[in-house]
Amino acid sequence: MTKNTKVNAAILIIGNEILSGRTQDTNTNTIALWLNSIGVKVNEVRVIPDIEDTIIDTVNHLRKVNDYVFTTGGIGPTHDDITAQSISKAFSLEYEIHQEAFKILEDYYKEGEFNEGRQKMVWMPRNADLILNPTSGAPGFSVENVFCLPGVPSILKSMLGGLNNKIVGGNPILSNTISLRTVESEIAKSLAEIQDNNKDIEIGSYPFFQAGKLGVSIVIRSDEKSKIDKCTNQILRFISEKKIEVVDR
Amino acid sequence: MTKNTKVNAAILIIGNEILSGRTQDTNTNTIALWLNSIGVKVNEVRVIPDIEDTIIDTVNHLRKVNDYVFTTGGIGPTHDDITAQSISKAFSLEYEIHQEAFKILEDYYKEGEFNEGRQKMVWMPRNADLILNPTSGAPGFSVENVFCLPGVPSILKSMLGGLNNKIVGGNPILSNTISLRTVESEIAKSLAEIQDNNKDIEIGSYPFFQAGKLGVSIVIRSDEKSKIDKCTNQILRFISEKKIEVVDR
Repeated sequence: MTKNTKVNAAILIIGNEILSGRTQDTNTNTIALWLNSIGVKVNEVRVIPDIEDTIIDTVNHLRKVNDYVFTTGGIGPTHDDITAQSISKAFSLEYEIHQEAFKILEDYYKEGEFNEGRQKMVWMPRNADLILNPTSGAPGFSVENVFCLPGVPSILKSMLGGLNNKIVGGNPILSNTISLRTVESEIAKSLAEIQDNNKDIEIGSYPFFQAGKLGVSIVIRSDEKSKIDKCTNQILRFISEKKIEVVDR
Repeated sequence: MTKNTKVNAAILIIGNEILSGRTQDTNTNTIALWLNSIGVKVNEVRVIPDIEDTIIDTVNHLRKVNDYVFTTGGIGPTHDDITAQSISKAFSLEYEIHQEAFKILEDYYKEGEFNEGRQKMVWMPRNADLILNPTSGAPGFSVENVFCLPGVPSILKSMLGGLNNKIVGGNPILSNTISLRTVESEIAKSLAEIQDNNKDIEIGSYPFFQAGKLGVSIVIRSDEKSKIDKCTNQILRFISEKKIEVVDR
């Protein structure tokens, strides 16, 4: 009873502050972990500036070659928040006040606080679906397969749960990690042979340095547990033959 | 005596581990800060998987539309390190042993330690220029305007200094940050007017939450100090009129 569909996505980080180095992006990691947990593979990530034409072109490309696109940033109240108007243009939709979003923020703010600046946050592409925001009121939105989330990491995190029933993932992507007290060059050849014999799974090798000691983590990824187990056994066999210490598995 | 050239770059992060969420990328931030400091503007960042065709296509696109391209990841000794062979194909160059790199690693390792796995790290595009690695020996390389760096953040960091005389930047990009005790909606309208009157500078607005209090940082960026000063004064004027507290400037 496993689904056989492969479902993939792109993440699009919109914001000059990431490109200038002012801000360390963490939203990619948050979204990637969540997508993997629901069986959606991230094909690519892009970071682009707050430039309307760039947003339009990039969204229109990514939404055609991926099952889903997740954008972050640019949905706040200031002049540099241009995601909603850009998405409207990308889909040739009117950019207008979203009545449901308006009601949500009218209720959220105290009387007199729902000012002009805040009202900008309810301008969206016509008929956009809302993504509710349990942290700070202002919703994100989706149009077709494009989901627009805020840039503030804590707010974004709080909104992902509400998307679980909107995103249809494939088989969950499983992984197994074997951490070894060795260096990559010691295992490179054997690992390459195992990858050659198991072409449909992903084997990654990542050096680490922890508590003053070098090591390598081997990560095996597939949506089929039996394949991961088979590959794990093959790796453990050569590790044992080479008398390499297993730190963690 | 200011240079008028605008110099730009793309950053290309190569690695399944970023897309799966296993690893939080920090190399983008490191490279972006360094490039900004030497007057190179980052146009875009992409994260792509360890797939040869994807690397070739992406590099060939990015190198044509940017002055520089910086890649990270995929230059180690294991089977999933395919950046060097992919760059060779992107430029239609032979993928072969680089004699200078070979000598560097032969000297770096103790007798008998420069094994087959490690020797993979000296296979590069023909006539590639080396990027020296003061941390762990194995050099990166460049071909034309594409610079290939390792994925391990500490090693990458140690190699950037050696690139300073290879990258010709434009005017350094200057910035000024004004941090305020307010919320974005309070300043959105005035800030938009100032941006409208100063179209050739970048004004960003970034909410923050620190020590239990909300605030907003306004970041003004330009390569001309006089423009930043003019814009800063305009902002401080309306801030003062609105009696908004300046936390830091």
